[in-house]
Amino acid sequence: MSGEPDHAELVEDLLAGKHRALARVITKIENRAPGYRNLVSQLHQHTGDAEVVGITGSPGAGKSTLVDKMANYYRERGETVGVIAVDPSSPFTGGAVLGDRIRMASNVGDMDVFFRSMSARGTLGGLSTATTDAVKALDAFGKDKILIETVGAGQNEIDIVKSADTVAVLVPPGSGDDVQMLKAGILEIADVFVVNKADLDGADRTVQELREMVHMQQDNTASLATGHHGAGSTGGHGEDGESDDHDEGEETEHWEPQIVETVAKDGEGVEELVQTLADHADYLEASGLLEEKARMRYAEEIRNLLRDDVGTLLETEIERRGGIEAFAQQVLERETDPYSVADEIIGPLEDCVDQ
Amino acid sequence: MSGEPDHAELVEDLLAGKHRALARVITKIENRAPGYRNLVSQLHQHTGDAEVVGITGSPGAGKSTLVDKMANYYRERGETVGVIAVDPSSPFTGGAVLGDRIRMASNVGDMDVFFRSMSARGTLGGLSTATTDAVKALDAFGKDKILIETVGAGQNEIDIVKSADTVAVLVPPGSGDDVQMLKAGILEIADVFVVNKADLDGADRTVQELREMVHMQQDNTASLATGHHGAGSTGGHGEDGESDDHDEGEETEHWEPQIVETVAKDGEGVEELVQTLADHADYLEASGLLEEKARMRYAEEIRNLLRDDVGTLLETEIERRGGIEAFAQQVLERETDPYSVADEIIGPLEDCVDQ
Repeated sequence: MSGEPDHAELVEDLLAGKHRALARVITKIENRAPGYRNLVSQLHQHTGDAEVVGITGSPGAGKSTLVDKMANYYRERGETVGVIAVDPSSPFTGGAVLGDRIRMASNVGDMDVFFRSMSARGTLGGLSTATTDAVKALDAFGKDKILIETVGAGQNEIDIVKSADTVAVLVPPGSGDDVQMLKAGILEIADVFVVNKADLDGADRTVQELREMVHMQQDNTASLATGHHGAGSTGGHGEDGESDDHDEGEETEHWEPQIVETVAKDGEGVEELVQTLADHADYLEASGLLEEKARMRYAEEIRNLLRDDVGTLLETEIERRGGIEAFAQQVLERETDPYSVADEIIGPLEDCVDQ
Repeated sequence: MSGEPDHAELVEDLLAGKHRALARVITKIENRAPGYRNLVSQLHQHTGDAEVVGITGSPGAGKSTLVDKMANYYRERGETVGVIAVDPSSPFTGGAVLGDRIRMASNVGDMDVFFRSMSARGTLGGLSTATTDAVKALDAFGKDKILIETVGAGQNEIDIVKSADTVAVLVPPGSGDDVQMLKAGILEIADVFVVNKADLDGADRTVQELREMVHMQQDNTASLATGHHGAGSTGGHGEDGESDDHDEGEETEHWEPQIVETVAKDGEGVEELVQTLADHADYLEASGLLEEKARMRYAEEIRNLLRDDVGTLLETEIERRGGIEAFAQQVLERETDPYSVADEIIGPLEDCVDQ
């Protein structure tokens, strides 16, 4: 990528812990500014130390309040936090949707919590890639914890939080229907279910329904696993805040999704949630799944980038040859046909790699 | 594609109206047998005369019975029919799911109705392409009407029937919920709603709900269109069965989705349905939308083929360079990073087209 800025100084500043550089890097990532690929390339070797948690759930479940409280909790015990809020439902807006300023306010002056809203410029795949890249920036910067928060809880959100090591799914209480809805896709990715607003009526029933759902799923997959993590409650230990070596002697072949109750607005249950997330991180590490997941994620990252790059390459080629409409018109007039057009465009590329 | 069979004789036989050749061609298309691309290329110039109708709707709505009756109806008035039944829900089975033999039985010995079940080998995109190609085979063969029938009614089915000129969506009666469900995607693609089993309780309510839904949608888009097709009922004319020139003087800028009631098992309403489909075909022709839709479809066909081809090309390249797992491992070990890997693989291709 000759002619593009190599951003050496910017990378240096970011690695030196300058928040201004971090903000600029993430802006470049978001805007796909010239040289951003090279920028992310340089950051990659400095990544791998952060604990990355994805947080999703239907709007109104209280995600942003909970994330704020979690960030504060981490902060208070001396850890640094990066938060990326992602809204895939507004893929074509240019700006941040959540309103950085409002959310930033809760952490004004506390530069150990870095908060950034992202929305998609262009494709959803682009947003997913930009989120992954922004996580790398925060990781390389040295943030201990990185929280990826989605605005909604649809398929797109699932794809985005899937890139985290640990996924927490918020469920509002008293929503029997929502628990049913959850079954589509979210059950599979949730490592921890959070019943937030647990002080409201119906919370117990929601917890009960989640428990039944989890057990049903566990029974279905029981034959595949030998050991059960299966601690009913995970709170009350780990107050020192370091991911220490508890549970080390336990069987770690299997993680049963945990259910944690919180009242985010009062900070209730946040400690237990944070501990449960740490337990999951320990489980991933001990079982070797952390590396395995990272390997799969990198394979997918490479495939996604290749798909995007080659898509751009093809679009350029199509344009250079007169545009897709011209081809379609020729096909309509039976001067050519779709396979011949594809061969014509792909042929030179095939010849090229065959050499 | 040197070294591959050019299938000249097979194409000749198909164009000469030999059903055995047609069956062999569709098998080659389904199996992506060597030379199938060239085969479809050769067929393309002989296409464009058939009326292609897509039929979708939830399982149990009576699609296959209705399609059989429609085929018989066309057949009785001297037209030839090709039916392709597609089941995207079983993308990895090797065989036809509907059971060709059972369905074939209803038309045994009647070679003017050609029936073929298809299921996906490989990807869903592959099934969509194979369906499009099979339609071309039937079209080139000279079938007057081609019916694409899907087994289910999900997003994948929508993608498949979208490739037809006219789309009919079957709705089972008394299914208030189903009408609600329909809103996601199907409303936009339905040119005709068919309330089948119209003799059952609840059919009137379903018709009413569909009517309200259609009108609501029409109101929403009213500002975009000047004229309304808007015939409340389309039955009672066109008994001669030819797609004659009625409605010619009418405004044709806009098509309001029609609602037709049928009792497929008794053949009731089939004539009205067939006439409504013909009305839509006339509307497409008169408004110029038929060409416009074909052009858009060809553009999408080209893009899909390019995406598939380049995907294959990339997979080959990745394998040649040691496989995706090896790359992922190197990224994990921070020897490289996803962007560098992508650049390494795409670079030569870019250089190649830049020349």
